[in-house]
Amino acid sequence: MPGIITTEPIEVAIIGGGIVGLVLAAGLTRQKVRVKVYEQARNFREIGAGIGFTARTVQCMEKVNPAVVSALRSGGSVNASLDEHDPNSYLRWIDGYTQHRVDDPEYQKMLLTLDAGYKGWETVRRDQFLEDLVKVIPGGVIELQKRLDTIEQKGEDKIVLTFVDGTRAEADAVFGCDGIKSRTRQILLGPDNPASYPQYTHKVAYRALIPMDKALEALGEYKGRRQHMHIGPNAHLIHYPVNQKMIGATVIVTDPKDWPSDQQNTARGSRKEVEAALEGWCLPVQNLIKLFPEELDQWALFDLWEYPVPAYNYGKISLVGDAAHASSPHHGAGASMGIEDALCLSTLLQEVSKDVNENAEPKGQALRTAFETYNAIRRTRTQWLVNSSRRVCDLFHQPDWADPAKRVKAESCFEEIKDRSFKIWHHDSASMVEETIRDYRRRCETPSETKIQMS
Amino acid sequence: MPGIITTEPIEVAIIGGGIVGLVLAAGLTRQKVRVKVYEQARNFREIGAGIGFTARTVQCMEKVNPAVVSALRSGGSVNASLDEHDPNSYLRWIDGYTQHRVDDPEYQKMLLTLDAGYKGWETVRRDQFLEDLVKVIPGGVIELQKRLDTIEQKGEDKIVLTFVDGTRAEADAVFGCDGIKSRTRQILLGPDNPASYPQYTHKVAYRALIPMDKALEALGEYKGRRQHMHIGPNAHLIHYPVNQKMIGATVIVTDPKDWPSDQQNTARGSRKEVEAALEGWCLPVQNLIKLFPEELDQWALFDLWEYPVPAYNYGKISLVGDAAHASSPHHGAGASMGIEDALCLSTLLQEVSKDVNENAEPKGQALRTAFETYNAIRRTRTQWLVNSSRRVCDLFHQPDWADPAKRVKAESCFEEIKDRSFKIWHHDSASMVEETIRDYRRRCETPSETKIQMS
Repeated sequence: MPGIITTEPIEVAIIGGGIVGLVLAAGLTRQKVRVKVYEQARNFREIGAGIGFTARTVQCMEKVNPAVVSALRSGGSVNASLDEHDPNSYLRWIDGYTQHRVDDPEYQKMLLTLDAGYKGWETVRRDQFLEDLVKVIPGGVIELQKRLDTIEQKGEDKIVLTFVDGTRAEADAVFGCDGIKSRTRQILLGPDNPASYPQYTHKVAYRALIPMDKALEALGEYKGRRQHMHIGPNAHLIHYPVNQKMIGATVIVTDPKDWPSDQQNTARGSRKEVEAALEGWCLPVQNLIKLFPEELDQWALFDLWEYPVPAYNYGKISLVGDAAHASSPHHGAGASMGIEDALCLSTLLQEVSKDVNENAEPKGQALRTAFETYNAIRRTRTQWLVNSSRRVCDLFHQPDWADPAKRVKAESCFEEIKDRSFKIWHHDSASMVEETIRDYRRRCETPSETKIQMS
Repeated sequence: MPGIITTEPIEVAIIGGGIVGLVLAAGLTRQKVRVKVYEQARNFREIGAGIGFTARTVQCMEKVNPAVVSALRSGGSVNASLDEHDPNSYLRWIDGYTQHRVDDPEYQKMLLTLDAGYKGWETVRRDQFLEDLVKVIPGGVIELQKRLDTIEQKGEDKIVLTFVDGTRAEADAVFGCDGIKSRTRQILLGPDNPASYPQYTHKVAYRALIPMDKALEALGEYKGRRQHMHIGPNAHLIHYPVNQKMIGATVIVTDPKDWPSDQQNTARGSRKEVEAALEGWCLPVQNLIKLFPEELDQWALFDLWEYPVPAYNYGKISLVGDAAHASSPHHGAGASMGIEDALCLSTLLQEVSKDVNENAEPKGQALRTAFETYNAIRRTRTQWLVNSSRRVCDLFHQPDWADPAKRVKAESCFEEIKDRSFKIWHHDSASMVEETIRDYRRRCETPSETKIQMS
């Protein structure tokens, strides 16, 4: 179906310069595509302490742009298990609550160890990764202090973006990578759609970065250098090295109260609250909590579980990463899903470029078809993750852990946790790329069926 | 470690002559083992209308004893999808509640179709399968009207069984295949252990067998001949052909009330109750319900989810099938798990026989080691099934189905349902057999670590 021959490159706008937006930009700037990233902040900053990526996610980064992996490594990433003699990573679930040996208060019962394989989990400080990721993006691509106000999409015209500073921009395609509170999503779904706003998961997080030497004193050498998830009734503690000198530690507590979504999702908190939530837990847990700062933020965790986004594609606009499928963090895979999205989309833009630049296909049609493919390929897995993250946190926080008569039942959750973890970790990015191209080509051959437009 | 040489064969007692007990007996009677089955009833009878087995479960039967598969087939088993042109079986989840097309009240939205492969699900009437299974067991093996009263297990002595009729019997090993209300389990765990008794799942089932011609009128040709699971708020209906002339249909309803475990788990019910539970559901569902008898039993569904059995092996006694891991029926896999158990145990008894008869190993030690292996191999998967069956029923019964604003969320459950179904269906019995032998051999080599005795 050849259309009007055009030599001008496809212009795309990425809304949001977080990890996912920048990884996507790193992919698209390697292609015959003109890329702009619009970030609302004055500077780049990332919330949260550390972040982890599985080996398969690192493979996705490699396919998007090898420079992303260099940024991860130069950002100081380390194996989630710091062990001189073993290059594999392990995720470990450990009893944080019950004192199994009265004579040994340091002892905690190991509940599940999963082998994530060779360098299976790399962890890094978010801020350091982002800093090095910015350097991967060519000059002139990123514009700061651009807060999106409106998007106008009309047929085959350019999409028009306006920003709250009164400026405007045009693009052939828009990627909403603007996170859990995505303005792009709000514009697309409208103010009355509950999916425009994230929902409170009834979990609150307290995060800290703790010097390694102090952490080793609190947890002991073995636990201190290795990721551990300490679970118990209505709360859990996860910690892992974020580099050679620091561990990231997060306590997540069940909160039966409400947290209005129009409110800031951080509030002032204190170590005392954390201590109260983990009262009576195992000694190493209590030791580590003592190293949290006396005053610290509490983060209300929101997600898109209750009202998922009905589609990730709206004509020539798509929602990517947290904007599409913000998840609670309990699988540690939220950003990984966004990076898989970025690989899917950067694969598609390569196909679209080929069709537009070499085969003179009409831009708009090719982009719409690409985003339909993106929706078809990515939605099931990513929405599953949102659900699964809620589910595993419920399993971690089983009140049954506090009832000795219910321990057999409580411990029977680990087969499910294993299956869910493996489903995330064992993602086959090569198959996804193949399937993406196949699905796009199939849709190109049957365009009449696939025409779904936004308005 | 050769011990006292003995030429007398191993004597085993199977408590309970249900499907699992008889399949195990069919396996053991082929070996150099003296088998007795003690069944409390006066005659063989099976509760429930139909039962389904996956192709992999049929493989397990084949390995236990090919005559079991012959019994299944002579019992009149059919493919869960009766389709002349397609030998594959499919499981289908369909919207039973929402009217998606005002102009077509017969229309129901298909939510998930899973391909179970070539003859992937065979369904049969329980009573007919059991009748033909009994014929597989050699004469003199089965003793009816033997209700177990006590078990005495003392070191290397024979285990002594007493029955309520005052008779007694001896055996080297005992298999408790006595179902969800297992007397063997009660004896082993004691009257004060909550795991001695099944727990109410807060679901009630209404079952019917309906002539095929009537079913086709109610459901239409396509649905009538094929398994379908109609889901909606707080209830679901499943139906499937049990032979060429009949379908089995079960309605399962969420029941917030309690059902004391000391009470009978059936009560008189009526079609009116079923109609009330499915009021406002799609027309084909309502049509089918009209074919249920006016008076019918309601079955309270119990399981071992809340208080799972802490181990399946107790010295030379083991718990098998529902006695070990009674599940609610929502995966249709309860009996399949018991048949996998039977394959594991019949593999082990072959190894034990070899050790005792050819290598003159002491019987008791070999049997205890075998049952430790059985516990290690089977417990995780089977307890997972108990949990998973509860979980999928919660997903089937989501109240969200009744809220149009929650449909996107409700429909996001199917990736999980698919994963769970495949985990059950794709069981690799050849690997299980290999792993069973390997684990048993490893334990035999390190007997000091493995000595766990009952009392």
